[in-house]
Amino acid sequence: MQFTQGLHRAVQQKPDAVATSCNDRVRTFAETGDRVARLAAGFVGLGLTRESRICILALNSDRYLEAYLAIAWMGAISVPANCRWSNAELIYSINDADCTALIVDDQFSTAVPALREGCPGLREVIFAGDGPCPEGAIPCEALIGNSPGIDDVGAHGNDLLGIFYTGGTTGAPKGVMLSHSNICSSSLAMLAEGLFAEGARGLHIAPMFHLADMLMIGCLLLRGCEHVMLPHFKPDAVFSAIEERRVTDTLVVPAMLQALVDHPDIAKRDLGSLRNVLYGASPASEALIERATDALPGVGLMQGYGMTEVAAFLTALPREMHTPEGRKRNKLRSAGRAGYHVQLRVVDAEDREVPRGTIGEIIARGPNIMQGYLNKPEATGEALRNGWMHTGDLAYMDDDGYVFIVDRLKDMIISGGENVYSTEVENAIARHPAVASCAVVGIPCDEMGEKVHAAIVLKSGMSLTLDELREHCRTLIAGYKCPRSLVIVDALPLSGAGKILKTALRAPYWREVDRAAG
Amino acid sequence: MQFTQGLHRAVQQKPDAVATSCNDRVRTFAETGDRVARLAAGFVGLGLTRESRICILALNSDRYLEAYLAIAWMGAISVPANCRWSNAELIYSINDADCTALIVDDQFSTAVPALREGCPGLREVIFAGDGPCPEGAIPCEALIGNSPGIDDVGAHGNDLLGIFYTGGTTGAPKGVMLSHSNICSSSLAMLAEGLFAEGARGLHIAPMFHLADMLMIGCLLLRGCEHVMLPHFKPDAVFSAIEERRVTDTLVVPAMLQALVDHPDIAKRDLGSLRNVLYGASPASEALIERATDALPGVGLMQGYGMTEVAAFLTALPREMHTPEGRKRNKLRSAGRAGYHVQLRVVDAEDREVPRGTIGEIIARGPNIMQGYLNKPEATGEALRNGWMHTGDLAYMDDDGYVFIVDRLKDMIISGGENVYSTEVENAIARHPAVASCAVVGIPCDEMGEKVHAAIVLKSGMSLTLDELREHCRTLIAGYKCPRSLVIVDALPLSGAGKILKTALRAPYWREVDRAAG
Repeated sequence: MQFTQGLHRAVQQKPDAVATSCNDRVRTFAETGDRVARLAAGFVGLGLTRESRICILALNSDRYLEAYLAIAWMGAISVPANCRWSNAELIYSINDADCTALIVDDQFSTAVPALREGCPGLREVIFAGDGPCPEGAIPCEALIGNSPGIDDVGAHGNDLLGIFYTGGTTGAPKGVMLSHSNICSSSLAMLAEGLFAEGARGLHIAPMFHLADMLMIGCLLLRGCEHVMLPHFKPDAVFSAIEERRVTDTLVVPAMLQALVDHPDIAKRDLGSLRNVLYGASPASEALIERATDALPGVGLMQGYGMTEVAAFLTALPREMHTPEGRKRNKLRSAGRAGYHVQLRVVDAEDREVPRGTIGEIIARGPNIMQGYLNKPEATGEALRNGWMHTGDLAYMDDDGYVFIVDRLKDMIISGGENVYSTEVENAIARHPAVASCAVVGIPCDEMGEKVHAAIVLKSGMSLTLDELREHCRTLIAGYKCPRSLVIVDALPLSGAGKILKTALRAPYWREVDRAAG
Repeated sequence: MQFTQGLHRAVQQKPDAVATSCNDRVRTFAETGDRVARLAAGFVGLGLTRESRICILALNSDRYLEAYLAIAWMGAISVPANCRWSNAELIYSINDADCTALIVDDQFSTAVPALREGCPGLREVIFAGDGPCPEGAIPCEALIGNSPGIDDVGAHGNDLLGIFYTGGTTGAPKGVMLSHSNICSSSLAMLAEGLFAEGARGLHIAPMFHLADMLMIGCLLLRGCEHVMLPHFKPDAVFSAIEERRVTDTLVVPAMLQALVDHPDIAKRDLGSLRNVLYGASPASEALIERATDALPGVGLMQGYGMTEVAAFLTALPREMHTPEGRKRNKLRSAGRAGYHVQLRVVDAEDREVPRGTIGEIIARGPNIMQGYLNKPEATGEALRNGWMHTGDLAYMDDDGYVFIVDRLKDMIISGGENVYSTEVENAIARHPAVASCAVVGIPCDEMGEKVHAAIVLKSGMSLTLDELREHCRTLIAGYKCPRSLVIVDALPLSGAGKILKTALRAPYWREVDRAAG
């Protein structure tokens, strides 16, 4: 399959249907197909080729989708950048992926000089915004206006579609290489689950650089549905978009769902068009599901579980498990069962399947499994050993094949729906002159699910406040990764082998939650 | 993806659900999974390997499905034989595919000596029946009973799953090589169309050797649904199976649908469980669809169009186009629009897309397109030229992307310099009240090059003259398209798959010409 396939299909079958609506801009599939073919021609005119990697640094917009499609159309490779990253992180990934072009919107145009300086391989900057074009950049509207469209080059199957960076456990982010088939197979399997039906209108709330939203892009494209884009998550704007565009389907992280259903205006707004809410990145509490079911009557909830390495989709917790009747089957705390496209196992350290109810690592194989980590053959070999993707997630499987994840990744923190890898934060903290040693864990947080917590041993005679620590970290890593809680300790708890016992650091905080719940 | 994937998934998620019911045998997925792993081990014990091609010559049964699955499980290649073939044709295909093993059931056990004699490469014969085992054959139940199961070898993706022989309507039959991905992508795309929902029970009426039924096998497997098998098509048996197993979905060829809806008992039988009837393999007349809609209230009709070379699925005509309301959109005479997995074009002889409404050849590309014809590199190159599968079907596309098939490229009649599409003439004839079924071909004519010739099966007690037929047709189609020659027959010659053999209808007339010319 081919990522642009859904666009071709929609242009063929419903040219006059709305493809994108973004702010006040509404475009049909015929227009979008034409713009994409012209933008692809513009890229080729700039000297970009099928080998080129093109970084996209932008908030959600119709132009983001057009850029994705035009890059695939000419057979090049998208490198969507995390909008929350610091310049240092952006520079790392642009250089790691060997990007020769960068697409920015208004929001990020001020970063261009720093990125140009840090990334000598960047030859072209393309501006996909509405405001003033950064110096030396080419407006994408000029590319579209000046170029007659080219034919789709037909990149497909195992051809690389994009490189998607995930936070690295070893300090450096890893570029996950996904092919056209990877994304398309996950999307097709999601359609088979019944979401994004014919005539659906999907709202992009989650950032489009994120693989979860990429999955929704793939689904909406394949089915030929309208994409409604929101640049930022704000409950008010979400409600307005649903009302104005009669949105039927969307994808959120639980923290967003919580913010929506807790919003005082929710009952006053007309959300009657909404049919399905797909949530993922972390399980939702039963309380949240109940609240959402009450606040959004007639809306089906469905959980998807996956990660960048599996094109965002491994398991689905179907809608019927969320209804009052279905909840009696007690699957709500699970991440669901294998999608139609994958094989899933829970295994021990030797990849032997463990009995039902026993905790092991989730492994998977299927057409959605990544091609590998860019420039990291060892990490790739480790993740894909024996032909199965090793998710690093610990779970048990029940008798119906539902997986219950007990620990995401040994040390990973999920804060506000974002994965925070403790090692990366620890590396940043360790660079502070007052720090002798440190460990970072996730501790419970009502608002964020988990928050980043640091335990630090100071160098003799030194002091450090949370504010000072945060200020230091902000120069190195994204804001959401910076510690929100700090404890100064005399020594870190160590195992016999001298490894830091993170469980011991986490335990007191989580035990309190258990007590409160119990 | 992997053909056995759906079995693994069902064993994991619903081990106690019914996998197969055949006569009085009902087996769960757990049992089926166990039997398949043991049968695969038995095959390996016989010395069969991942290179082996294994011919299956049997009527529909649970053991047919188990054989398909066990062969895929051990990574070997199925060669399903057409049950209606003569020994000469069977010998041709077994030798062409280099089969080293043959699986037969009771129905075909008498053919074993002749096949052994004609196929010196056949080393093993496996008996999948209930009656006496042919001499020198090994009962599959013995293989299953004697062998502890082996692990699935994991054949998948582009690995060859089967060699499927097509028609032989022109020259020697061609072995279409289909991979695991070919079948699985068509099946997944069909699930995305909404057929074979969770909990569905599918009835195999069409022969399982045929690709159309293979598509249904794939769908039911992926979704983890019950397979109900009927060895022969008999309307009574179909009704009973629907009643007894509460069948929800089935797949038929139009001739079967016709026989079902014309059956005098249809109104007396309880077909209330039936939800979807997928029809395909040849076009259905508008009259038949109207009759079926009346005779099967509450049942959604859907047309699938494809061929062996595309793993049986290119386009779908959705259910909503069959309802009285949907029929107003005038798509009923079309074969539908491209499925979610393929790209489709209607092109001229140079593969250039023709304008909407213009007749050209349907070409397609996607993950379902065959690997090629076995031992026929030239035919493969011709069919797959420019990276697209050339279907040989003539059609035009309307503004909504629906394709209207006007004829097989080779069935088109050129009469007096005018192109006459046999399907159009057949549709006109079918509306005559005396006509049960019909076929139209071109036969030699000194004056016109070819003339339009109709072979007609009349309804019981009815009569029809050529003049009456022409008078009727003139009210519907242009004069040059009306039959100039008529033969009333008891039955139309059908292929094993139930397709009308137009070659057989044409042959006597053209042979006379050959004789005259020779």
